[in-house]
Amino acid sequence: MSDTTKYAFGMIGLGTMGRSLLLNMADHGFAVAGHDKDASKVASLNEEGKDKDVKGFGDVAEFIHSLTTPRAIMMLVPAGKIVDAVIDELTPLLDKGDILIDGGNSHFTDTNRRVDELEAKGLHFFGMGVSGGEEGARRGPSMMPGGDKEAYNVMKPIFEAIAAHVNGEPCVTYIGPGASGHFVKMVHNGIEYGLMQLIAETYEIMKKGLKMDNASIGEVYTKWNEGRLQSFLMDITKDIFAFNAPGTDHLLIDDIKDEARAKGTGKWTSQVAMDLQAPIPTIDSAVSMRDLSKYKQLREQASTLYSQAEPEMDVDKEEFLAALEQAFYFSMIISYAQGMHLLTNASTEYKYDLKLGEIAKIWRGGCIIRSAFLNDIFNAYQNDPQLAHLLLDGGVEDLVSETVKGARKVLSATIGAGIAAPAFAASLSYFDNFRNKRMPSNLTQAQRDYFGAHTYELIGKEGVFHTQWTKKND
Amino acid sequence: MSDTTKYAFGMIGLGTMGRSLLLNMADHGFAVAGHDKDASKVASLNEEGKDKDVKGFGDVAEFIHSLTTPRAIMMLVPAGKIVDAVIDELTPLLDKGDILIDGGNSHFTDTNRRVDELEAKGLHFFGMGVSGGEEGARRGPSMMPGGDKEAYNVMKPIFEAIAAHVNGEPCVTYIGPGASGHFVKMVHNGIEYGLMQLIAETYEIMKKGLKMDNASIGEVYTKWNEGRLQSFLMDITKDIFAFNAPGTDHLLIDDIKDEARAKGTGKWTSQVAMDLQAPIPTIDSAVSMRDLSKYKQLREQASTLYSQAEPEMDVDKEEFLAALEQAFYFSMIISYAQGMHLLTNASTEYKYDLKLGEIAKIWRGGCIIRSAFLNDIFNAYQNDPQLAHLLLDGGVEDLVSETVKGARKVLSATIGAGIAAPAFAASLSYFDNFRNKRMPSNLTQAQRDYFGAHTYELIGKEGVFHTQWTKKND
Repeated sequence: MSDTTKYAFGMIGLGTMGRSLLLNMADHGFAVAGHDKDASKVASLNEEGKDKDVKGFGDVAEFIHSLTTPRAIMMLVPAGKIVDAVIDELTPLLDKGDILIDGGNSHFTDTNRRVDELEAKGLHFFGMGVSGGEEGARRGPSMMPGGDKEAYNVMKPIFEAIAAHVNGEPCVTYIGPGASGHFVKMVHNGIEYGLMQLIAETYEIMKKGLKMDNASIGEVYTKWNEGRLQSFLMDITKDIFAFNAPGTDHLLIDDIKDEARAKGTGKWTSQVAMDLQAPIPTIDSAVSMRDLSKYKQLREQASTLYSQAEPEMDVDKEEFLAALEQAFYFSMIISYAQGMHLLTNASTEYKYDLKLGEIAKIWRGGCIIRSAFLNDIFNAYQNDPQLAHLLLDGGVEDLVSETVKGARKVLSATIGAGIAAPAFAASLSYFDNFRNKRMPSNLTQAQRDYFGAHTYELIGKEGVFHTQWTKKND
Repeated sequence: MSDTTKYAFGMIGLGTMGRSLLLNMADHGFAVAGHDKDASKVASLNEEGKDKDVKGFGDVAEFIHSLTTPRAIMMLVPAGKIVDAVIDELTPLLDKGDILIDGGNSHFTDTNRRVDELEAKGLHFFGMGVSGGEEGARRGPSMMPGGDKEAYNVMKPIFEAIAAHVNGEPCVTYIGPGASGHFVKMVHNGIEYGLMQLIAETYEIMKKGLKMDNASIGEVYTKWNEGRLQSFLMDITKDIFAFNAPGTDHLLIDDIKDEARAKGTGKWTSQVAMDLQAPIPTIDSAVSMRDLSKYKQLREQASTLYSQAEPEMDVDKEEFLAALEQAFYFSMIISYAQGMHLLTNASTEYKYDLKLGEIAKIWRGGCIIRSAFLNDIFNAYQNDPQLAHLLLDGGVEDLVSETVKGARKVLSATIGAGIAAPAFAASLSYFDNFRNKRMPSNLTQAQRDYFGAHTYELIGKEGVFHTQWTKKND
């Protein structure tokens, strides 16, 4: 390719995701350019793209000038200050009418701020969540663009071409105004945290409760992935249980340290859910267990202090595995339901006007939480776009009612054996209170009024009331 | 009292807490003034304080000029913008060297900002958490002052006089620099959320699982409050179970709506804990259950869709109540332990240099979470001020090991019966993972590396590693 070529699309940040997306675009016939301050990443792109219409630039001005106008540029750089630094470097080089896209995992409040800042400069800006990891970016991701709709429509042909496709339809759609794209991607990641924690708990239960070896555990994941539990995460889990540490005859995961890291999107989901008063305790538990895993030294001390005999679960293995499949399916539904409920609340609070059916639709392919069950979610919101909560859908109700028994069986056994299953427990207690028409929160309100004069409401009577509880009335 | 009297202390905000604190000060011989924009509150203070050295002012300038200099003024107004508005109105009227105290539940990040702003104006400012509700404020609260130590030392005689006393020692001590006073109060409230949710769950279990009537439930709380579960919250709960709705022969709580409200401090605790990566899942569950309670209409719909036979717990009632006492004691310990662990992390992160033993000491009286168990916490940190986690204390270990059996028994029964006990469940699974030297988080890390190239660590080998998992190595 000649240096004078004008490219239709530019990418800033040539890490795993940025490079893969560019190569994906080139495969679909788009001429694309990339920029990174790291020369080795520029070289990687040029090497991998040598037979395609792709060019990497180390110099930002050269990169900018290689693009056709109005320019279309996506940033895929770590969330936070780096995004602002890139914007600051870039904006003097851009012209009014250029399109700038933040494809990273920015916090939606940062995106809100940048929408205002860049609009004032005459630039079209939108935030877009991109899910699918390296492989998804390369072969077809799920994308969640929100913000400037006009600008999205300009980009639509490229994004629809490179997206994953399910039943011939692309896994990308305009999400809504403002930072809604990043918001929806954040909640996607929150659900992902929940599902990953649930899978980890099935591993723990099979390993320590049922004393199964890795090969047998891998067989279970393989079998589950062929049934209704089919999902991307189950699929890679089965692969992980077939992957030996190089040069050994044991699995690599046996050597991996049990300290889980996080980049923040799960935490943000829990924090925002608390602001919006949308309870998502399954996801919360996934966040807190990632955090707890980091205290390995304390856990080792505590394991000595609170040692116990080997966990014993007096169960029939095959029957129990059937219950475990149900328990996972049940809790997985609860995770998605909590995430969708959070989106419902956000849609009202932030006026996003989200189409939950469309969101479920584009999550069916390309993204990390894609699963067979997303078809059920899609159908639920197709049947009733105003559905207040996923658990109130008739089809979902059937699945939940069938599988909740397994969740009870598994939890009773793990609790007796001293095996932790926090996300299973959070899912079941969420469900049992969600269908509880009379929670014990009347006592909480009475206590608050007693010690803090915070008032309470009465059943069937308007108004707020305060009682001087210390003055006995009998 | 003459209008020319000069008062030693001034209070802005004459709601429940402010008025009660002022009257408390007056009882201890201090001449004090109050100000509120609400004339009826000023009148209330003057009426209640008519035989004391107390005066309420509707005019802020008159109020300011009635104070001896350097002035000492406390604000007890709702957290947020109102605090800033009061500060803006006040500062032009103050002189360098005056002391301003925020005694409300301000978010600690707001307090950090105000410390800087007011220091620049030559004012001494400190944030102080005040706990105890109306009764505590009137008869002796627990107070957590942080920030300007010099200013606190000036105020110390007043605060030590009006504080609750335990074994002759006042429940107030200088907490540390910056916003540490408000931070510690926030965590106090987070623990309070946890304990209140746990009590609510015992109510639910006795009512729906054991089918006990209110009188019998009240007897249990009365009995518990005479033993090791003795606490302020248990004490008021027993009172609530003896309080009839006016003019009826049934309890008032039976008429109170099961929608719990919140003012935000519990939520803040969970959100900050996630930022500091200090897991506090018991408190998180309390926050999410307050939120869930608000969806009463959805819960009513779901209760029809997911109806079940009356919950059945096939247990011996007396044995089960003994297990419930253990379960509560166990989960209560876990709540405190999570809160103290959060304080440990905050102390490092924000350089608060917190003395956890001193904090436990001033929580033993006056505040909402005071309980017999706080003596055990105090002793644990007296024995080892560097104790990394409360559950690693030998004395606490004895109590936990004895009571965890009850927690397992209660949870197995509630899970089988379909009764939600989310905070009990979160406490037990936290414990079971805290003493888990090998969590299943190695799988989480393998998954993250598989789909996102996020790398992993190995046991017994330095460094971070990445694997191309899709390239089978066998």
